[in-house]
Amino acid sequence: MAIKIAVNTWLFALRFTDERVALLDSVRDLGFEAVEISLMEPGDIHGRKMRGELTRRGLTCSSVAVICGEGRDLRGTAEEQRAALEFLKGCIDTTADLECGLLNGPLYSRVGRTDAKPTDPRQEQLRIVADHLRTLEEYAQKRGVLLAIEPILRFESDLINTCAEALELIALTGSPRLGVHLDTFHMNVEEANPVLAVVRAGDKLLNLHAADNHRSAPGTGAFNWQGLRDALRHIGYDRFVTIEAFHPDAPDISFPAAVRRKQLPTNADVGRRGLAFLRALFAE
Amino acid sequence: MAIKIAVNTWLFALRFTDERVALLDSVRDLGFEAVEISLMEPGDIHGRKMRGELTRRGLTCSSVAVICGEGRDLRGTAEEQRAALEFLKGCIDTTADLECGLLNGPLYSRVGRTDAKPTDPRQEQLRIVADHLRTLEEYAQKRGVLLAIEPILRFESDLINTCAEALELIALTGSPRLGVHLDTFHMNVEEANPVLAVVRAGDKLLNLHAADNHRSAPGTGAFNWQGLRDALRHIGYDRFVTIEAFHPDAPDISFPAAVRRKQLPTNADVGRRGLAFLRALFAE
Amino acid sequence: MAIKIAVNTWLFALRFTDERVALLDSVRDLGFEAVEISLMEPGDIHGRKMRGELTRRGLTCSSVAVICGEGRDLRGTAEEQRAALEFLKGCIDTTADLECGLLNGPLYSRVGRTDAKPTDPRQEQLRIVADHLRTLEEYAQKRGVLLAIEPILRFESDLINTCAEALELIALTGSPRLGVHLDTFHMNVEEANPVLAVVRAGDKLLNLHAADNHRSAPGTGAFNWQGLRDALRHIGYDRFVTIEAFHPDAPDISFPAAVRRKQLPTNADVGRRGLAFLRALFAE
Amino acid sequence: MAIKIAVNTWLFALRFTDERVALLDSVRDLGFEAVEISLMEPGDIHGRKMRGELTRRGLTCSSVAVICGEGRDLRGTAEEQRAALEFLKGCIDTTADLECGLLNGPLYSRVGRTDAKPTDPRQEQLRIVADHLRTLEEYAQKRGVLLAIEPILRFESDLINTCAEALELIALTGSPRLGVHLDTFHMNVEEANPVLAVVRAGDKLLNLHAADNHRSAPGTGAFNWQGLRDALRHIGYDRFVTIEAFHPDAPDISFPAAVRRKQLPTNADVGRRGLAFLRALFAE
Repeated sequence: MAIKIAVNTWLFALRFTDERVALLDSVRDLGFEAVEISLMEPGDIHGRKMRGELTRRGLTCSSVAVICGEGRDLRGTAEEQRAALEFLKGCIDTTADLECGLLNGPLYSRVGRTDAKPTDPRQEQLRIVADHLRTLEEYAQKRGVLLAIEPILRFESDLINTCAEALELIALTGSPRLGVHLDTFHMNVEEANPVLAVVRAGDKLLNLHAADNHRSAPGTGAFNWQGLRDALRHIGYDRFVTIEAFHPDAPDISFPAAVRRKQLPTNADVGRRGLAFLRALFAE
Repeated sequence: MAIKIAVNTWLFALRFTDERVALLDSVRDLGFEAVEISLMEPGDIHGRKMRGELTRRGLTCSSVAVICGEGRDLRGTAEEQRAALEFLKGCIDTTADLECGLLNGPLYSRVGRTDAKPTDPRQEQLRIVADHLRTLEEYAQKRGVLLAIEPILRFESDLINTCAEALELIALTGSPRLGVHLDTFHMNVEEANPVLAVVRAGDKLLNLHAADNHRSAPGTGAFNWQGLRDALRHIGYDRFVTIEAFHPDAPDISFPAAVRRKQLPTNADVGRRGLAFLRALFAE
Repeated sequence: MAIKIAVNTWLFALRFTDERVALLDSVRDLGFEAVEISLMEPGDIHGRKMRGELTRRGLTCSSVAVICGEGRDLRGTAEEQRAALEFLKGCIDTTADLECGLLNGPLYSRVGRTDAKPTDPRQEQLRIVADHLRTLEEYAQKRGVLLAIEPILRFESDLINTCAEALELIALTGSPRLGVHLDTFHMNVEEANPVLAVVRAGDKLLNLHAADNHRSAPGTGAFNWQGLRDALRHIGYDRFVTIEAFHPDAPDISFPAAVRRKQLPTNADVGRRGLAFLRALFAE
Repeated sequence: MAIKIAVNTWLFALRFTDERVALLDSVRDLGFEAVEISLMEPGDIHGRKMRGELTRRGLTCSSVAVICGEGRDLRGTAEEQRAALEFLKGCIDTTADLECGLLNGPLYSRVGRTDAKPTDPRQEQLRIVADHLRTLEEYAQKRGVLLAIEPILRFESDLINTCAEALELIALTGSPRLGVHLDTFHMNVEEANPVLAVVRAGDKLLNLHAADNHRSAPGTGAFNWQGLRDALRHIGYDRFVTIEAFHPDAPDISFPAAVRRKQLPTNADVGRRGLAFLRALFAE
């Protein structure tokens, strides 16, 4: 097994567009060989040209990360569902154009929808989402793209917060190829035991986002990284561990309070130190 | 040293009012000897009468917890600052009427204000808040009430997220009696090392909120409780450890997604199991 | 699943004999419902009579623990092997007489044999031991007794230190019923990840010895008890968690330096606090 | 603060002598800039010549580690006390000749003496040891060498197992310069909380031995390295973190069972991976 390390573009900017292609130089200069592109709109990048830019720098696009924003929600109004489907299909297309095999994120709902009430028809919502995910998975399959859904913490969604809930939703879809995408920052809040969450994900795990408990570089905080490493080895994981950490240096990042403090001086420090720590952690 | 265990009323209802006095029976029946009252409005309870209700049940009010909601903000507009000051003075009065010696919470700003930008005049905000806290502390002192400020996580405030930031704000006030109030749920996200955060708080620590990483009963999740216990003993802490955990059973709880999942069947289970675990943890 | 808590007699005395039957009163008075008897010699207790003494006090013998001392070694000289076999058969008989269904311990070798050299014929030793264990397991089966082997730390044996090594030895025996017996004190030194060691043991796990990292009461030290609890639940464990902790109060305990320090005032404190902590930890 | 990383010669051989000077090439080739020399006999190396060999390779001797073997014991018979004093003075001389400023180890007694009984005159033993340590410290001071005593686990000594006990012994000596030398492998067994043990040591801490819980490379096991890092920063530690790990590759290592298993293929792997992990951990 050889675990590979990638970095998400959010460390450098909220919105990665063709104009910001120089950001890839930073990725390469920090020593990464792969990048996860956070795609805010399918048209933000021209997939095939960007593929060339990546290749020119010796980089791979290991995955594309997406979130559904305002107006897009697979469990929303009919209009929101339609908009989300269209958006996600566009993202699948761009992912394929990038010759990247994985699209991941909290695909199931709008990020920021957190107003669930005990009386909400949760099972009905899950069924609707599962139907849409099956449709999307079939679409993605034709383009050679895998989909993985990411549980996120309660402050960002009330639908899927844990690995167990993600696995239940996947079971509802009946799709054998839909995967799970875990994130250490979210697991640290929602999972009673992150090591066992990884064990339960098993071969459904297609990507892992790495940030320490305070969302800065892996290894600089309190998250149990050695336990995570052991769990990934236990399940024979050989895909990417993707640093998705934040720093105020990134222009236009506007997530609520996610990035006010500078735990490290610059965003380059976050990338550099995270990469060194994960390489040492996963050395063989 | 003898650490005592209390429970916050939010386990039973968002808004504790005179009409909900029966909630105290639940507190007592679960085996608690002390309760922290979450006061949403100063007039929600008649302090002196409630004191009688507590005494009748053999209960103590160990602290009063408050949050500033919409329209109240010590770093807000002039009107918001005035409203917050008036609100907090009212809460101090009720606390004193309850013969309770401690008022705590994220007093420094409105909960939910999380839109800080790098260009915000943070130092100026802190200075304004520090001035108000000094005023409030003097008011509280006359009523025999201590104040403690609680760092909370980035999704609820962008001003004070860590113990170190709380200590800096306290230093700005110049008040020797203003204390810190830590919460394990928030520390789990924001502190690089919760054990050392407690060590740094030292004798400024006046209360400790206890919930596990997923905000259910202490001991049911992944938080390092043994380390917390050791840290509290290291600093000679002999005040209350207050369970502030959540469960969908509580009527009217409306915090964003804080309480959707039932990690335990009922809110009584959360209280019962949390109390048993903390008693075993802090046994002497 | 309901995990039950027992206590090993070593908390009260090294050698438990018919004369020391009053020790069972201490076990019961501390609130335990089951006891693990450490059997130093098969003749130390009259199995059937002791069964009556247990019943009279409302106690169960959940398991019998044995170690091979000087002159007894399943991988020793021919004479040592013979002596060990005879000893262990005697222990199986006493276990059956106690109407107890489990005999466990580091059956595979003499405790204290730690002088392995790289040139030692380790595989040959394991094969010899495996043959003996199969013989013993068949003997035990006829008496209705299960056998479980306990990995112990390097200072006490050089043969089987980890769960993985115990599972390899069990595989060598070809016996489907031979089980594993893990001990938190030993795991804390030898296992790269105790949570995953339990996961790997799975349904082979027949007993679990509980002591904190410094071998005093569970919960008073640094061992990750919440992780252990989660792992046991993950594998559906419903057998005993047996406190095997030490205190200088126990007369005749002579293990090297295992018990010099008093982390707690009395051995009764160790039992009482360990039981309260484990009950709170495993509450449902 | 800049923490520096060294490695103990025991990773390469039990006995480091002038004949084994080539071992220093391995130290340097692995990327270390400093080495801790385990000195079995003062005459094993010619201090001044070895200093030249170190300099030639760009290496520093950060500390000399010693243990008292058979016949040497500061709390032994009169003859054992005399022999230990003579041995330790010789080691101080060699340390000074190496232009090294620190001699550390479990100086207080023979390693392997673990037969304490509750009736032993422990306080009298500590007083005798304290007197000898004061004498040695004065001798060392004249040579520009600091002394630090290392608590070790119960299987190797029954006198000083914890940081608190080391600090008590130091207080008994009345010497303001005598320091503490902690070891993660030993702390993992004996300290109820290793983070707080480091905090308590404070500015008395003169060296730190690093091995993971199973005594292989730091970062490959279960020890809480991030907590250790935070604790060292909390006390402003700026001395060496010294890898003292073991591997069967080292010729003549004969500690009981300390090194049977190969957690990593070679001892060079232990050095390389430990160094990379600690560098990433302590990066600034």
